[in-house]
Amino acid sequence: MAEFNFQGKKVYYETYGAGEPILLLNGIMMATKGWAPFIENFSQNNQLILVDFFDQGQSERMTEPYDFSIQTALLGGLLDTLKLDSVNVCGISYGAKVGVDFAVNNPKRVRRLLSFNGAARMPPLLAEISKSWNEAAKLEGGMAYYLATIPVIYSDIFYERQRAWMDKRQELLVPYFGFPGVKEPLVRLTNSMMTFDVVDKLSALDMPVLVVTGKNDNLIPQREQEIMVNSIKNAQHVILPECGHASMFEKPMLFSSLILGFVNSKNSEFAV
Amino acid sequence: MAEFNFQGKKVYYETYGAGEPILLLNGIMMATKGWAPFIENFSQNNQLILVDFFDQGQSERMTEPYDFSIQTALLGGLLDTLKLDSVNVCGISYGAKVGVDFAVNNPKRVRRLLSFNGAARMPPLLAEISKSWNEAAKLEGGMAYYLATIPVIYSDIFYERQRAWMDKRQELLVPYFGFPGVKEPLVRLTNSMMTFDVVDKLSALDMPVLVVTGKNDNLIPQREQEIMVNSIKNAQHVILPECGHASMFEKPMLFSSLILGFVNSKNSEFAV
Amino acid sequence: MAEFNFQGKKVYYETYGAGEPILLLNGIMMATKGWAPFIENFSQNNQLILVDFFDQGQSERMTEPYDFSIQTALLGGLLDTLKLDSVNVCGISYGAKVGVDFAVNNPKRVRRLLSFNGAARMPPLLAEISKSWNEAAKLEGGMAYYLATIPVIYSDIFYERQRAWMDKRQELLVPYFGFPGVKEPLVRLTNSMMTFDVVDKLSALDMPVLVVTGKNDNLIPQREQEIMVNSIKNAQHVILPECGHASMFEKPMLFSSLILGFVNSKNSEFAV
Amino acid sequence: MAEFNFQGKKVYYETYGAGEPILLLNGIMMATKGWAPFIENFSQNNQLILVDFFDQGQSERMTEPYDFSIQTALLGGLLDTLKLDSVNVCGISYGAKVGVDFAVNNPKRVRRLLSFNGAARMPPLLAEISKSWNEAAKLEGGMAYYLATIPVIYSDIFYERQRAWMDKRQELLVPYFGFPGVKEPLVRLTNSMMTFDVVDKLSALDMPVLVVTGKNDNLIPQREQEIMVNSIKNAQHVILPECGHASMFEKPMLFSSLILGFVNSKNSEFAV
Repeated sequence: MAEFNFQGKKVYYETYGAGEPILLLNGIMMATKGWAPFIENFSQNNQLILVDFFDQGQSERMTEPYDFSIQTALLGGLLDTLKLDSVNVCGISYGAKVGVDFAVNNPKRVRRLLSFNGAARMPPLLAEISKSWNEAAKLEGGMAYYLATIPVIYSDIFYERQRAWMDKRQELLVPYFGFPGVKEPLVRLTNSMMTFDVVDKLSALDMPVLVVTGKNDNLIPQREQEIMVNSIKNAQHVILPECGHASMFEKPMLFSSLILGFVNSKNSEFAV
Repeated sequence: MAEFNFQGKKVYYETYGAGEPILLLNGIMMATKGWAPFIENFSQNNQLILVDFFDQGQSERMTEPYDFSIQTALLGGLLDTLKLDSVNVCGISYGAKVGVDFAVNNPKRVRRLLSFNGAARMPPLLAEISKSWNEAAKLEGGMAYYLATIPVIYSDIFYERQRAWMDKRQELLVPYFGFPGVKEPLVRLTNSMMTFDVVDKLSALDMPVLVVTGKNDNLIPQREQEIMVNSIKNAQHVILPECGHASMFEKPMLFSSLILGFVNSKNSEFAV
Repeated sequence: MAEFNFQGKKVYYETYGAGEPILLLNGIMMATKGWAPFIENFSQNNQLILVDFFDQGQSERMTEPYDFSIQTALLGGLLDTLKLDSVNVCGISYGAKVGVDFAVNNPKRVRRLLSFNGAARMPPLLAEISKSWNEAAKLEGGMAYYLATIPVIYSDIFYERQRAWMDKRQELLVPYFGFPGVKEPLVRLTNSMMTFDVVDKLSALDMPVLVVTGKNDNLIPQREQEIMVNSIKNAQHVILPECGHASMFEKPMLFSSLILGFVNSKNSEFAV
Repeated sequence: MAEFNFQGKKVYYETYGAGEPILLLNGIMMATKGWAPFIENFSQNNQLILVDFFDQGQSERMTEPYDFSIQTALLGGLLDTLKLDSVNVCGISYGAKVGVDFAVNNPKRVRRLLSFNGAARMPPLLAEISKSWNEAAKLEGGMAYYLATIPVIYSDIFYERQRAWMDKRQELLVPYFGFPGVKEPLVRLTNSMMTFDVVDKLSALDMPVLVVTGKNDNLIPQREQEIMVNSIKNAQHVILPECGHASMFEKPMLFSSLILGFVNSKNSEFAV
């Protein structure tokens, strides 16, 4: 519903409600409109901020390859536009990576950091799997790209139990991926994170951090996420059983509860 | 700060704040005053209700053996006293067992149910371990009872990393357990849950339920807690790594976040 | 080094040594010659039998789509050829599926059954992932097929620690997959298992069964393999940490030890 | 069936069969005769060596407190007596600790090292739990000692599924622990390991090492055993699901298979 210019390019964002602010960062194939089912819940006692990264949703399409850091920089522009010194930063997958990148580069602007299905670097195996997505993007139509990307995102149990939901998703996504101009931005987004690595900077973080791991996340597995838990002095760790890489879809009630609880919990240290 | 009579016996309770009500139920060796570090957080936007079970804190000491069900019944009296039709019920360990017992017997009075380190029955192995606590209670002084009960409650990692905290706890608890009249109520509380089993009634529950498991809980291990997760149709499950049976002490920030988030999350189903 | 005809088609096999016989069944992209590093170990006190399934190694290439059951039937022909009433059947991945199919259809011919990274059905998520392999097979050259199939087979930790090994594998496999006639049989093999499901027949098995699961197996995850463990009355279960779907490459010493130990252990029940 | 003198004290041992030698080391409450169900299996192609530590079985009862290292030293005397330069050393629990102590002090005498439910130090939490055993030993009769020690050794699932076996065990052990002179040696054995710690010496080990962990081992949990896995360069790790601290009783077929397989596997490195 609003936009601003960053480095001469349009950035689309939305805000809702008032209170302790939550900046919610999209996964790679998401856009602001995908958060519709969560808006009421996240804005009843909080200010909710949604944003499309470059090459996502209603933000500017890029024409050249770019580095991950432009997405991080964009967030600084967004906070300036909103005249917010600091916010709670909560991201999932690609958004979780941008979130931790923003936190290590702008620690004063992050009150609390929440990472769902995230990492502090591009995991080597995920880098290789991502290349297979880009290979599939070369094929005509949307099916090959759908099959290369979507099934590995979900846990096997979700895939089996929520088969009707998955089938409906396939009906929507296969034609969508087949539209002209849809796969190219996804390939650029994928490529933008290939060299991301801020592991060495994690020990400097001192805001409260929540790391939420899907126990069956095949793309960013538990061991990778534990790198963050073990490197950040004030990190809390939660495991969601029977959950893959898409925790907001696979476990929406837990996704919501963890965000609302961690952001709105008054004290973060307890003299118990 | 307040009390009422239930079946001719005094029940002590405390209430704080206003809003969506949270009834917080003690573990076996706890009392209302142990929740002091959590009160401000839980009452800022919610009504917090604390209560001592019979044989705990400032509630009546019993003279005869009794059944678990009297503790459950007491909660009905408490809600009547507070003129509350229903509340969110959140218990840990013994309190989680009473909580689930209350929910299966009074489903209309439980808006949401939260179980930390809980079970829907007395696990067979815990029943046997509990007997060793009662054996240790026969020995003079507080050391044998301390050693039999406290170390197995915590995860090995907490025990090692928070050694100063554990040592201080030992300094407090060993003399405390040695005072005349302290071990007897604990033995009665322990015995009261020996035959508890509501597993067969879980499938009737339809309020949102959150089951939180310490990954290193030696007393009520993951498999036991999964009985609840698998039997309750609307159950959400969270695992806390590096956490034993005392999640409120071992992971206070997560304990608090999960309660505040799950109780205050507006919708519990998402059309994602 | 030897061959026989089954239903008019050539089957290639090899045998080594003498003793309690071990029939070792290939994964989908394997062939008898891939077992070279294991032959000495497995044949020092045992008869080792290797075989190429149809569309593998030196066995006959198929021209039409076919069903999984022909691979199972082929094993009966092999035992007849070798004049062996029964053997210990040990398979990995595709071979583990054929192995369990052979066991439920020929229980008298299986002394002990060993499943590495296997399942008793085509897991629904793997079926979908497999389709993406077949999409990738449509692209020119071997790179797309390599990227679609190989990285998801290994655990993230193996992928990172054994990077030189993986790079060398890529050097070999990318040109190999690009050769004319290489991808087609792999697509047929993949398709042959799509409808496989013998879960309902597992309870009839009563030979000793060993199920070995890579803790980080993304293709046939732990939950899927536990279906076998929970359905077979005499099943033993082992988890290999830091191991993905290719246990024979990722953990060759444990792969070998478990086979030699389970096959050669004299009694399978203990009056302890 | 045989004995030798070590530092003026009697050591009892037994040997069976011939071949690659397996020295099997008792847990704290075990003795050579407890291995009866395993002897045939372990001696069919191997030389099996059983031994009672001081204060166990038919070896000498001690009169003063002693240090763990005397048990380690005793093993050197045993190998000298048997005129064996080196053996495969396999221990469980207390025996696994002695085994790793022997390996770091006598690396040339250990061909391969196998640790079941073991550790390279006295884990801090186990040290505290052990003190509760010694408190329970002060009570008359065998029940308190039984309840303090035995239930925590088994997994909750074994305890529930093998209830008849556990009840029979209780029938045997309660009177046994009550006999005069039975608890005192157990207390001394417990005390002997209190200060054991060779973690810093693990990196020097270069024989093949197998670490087998019961997933539900409450006494020496997975994290503790991973210290060995991560510190020893040539360590292999296996997890046994639904298994506690008594793997030889809870999973005898896997216990046996892993020993026979790991000891008799010809090569320990594979050029795969």
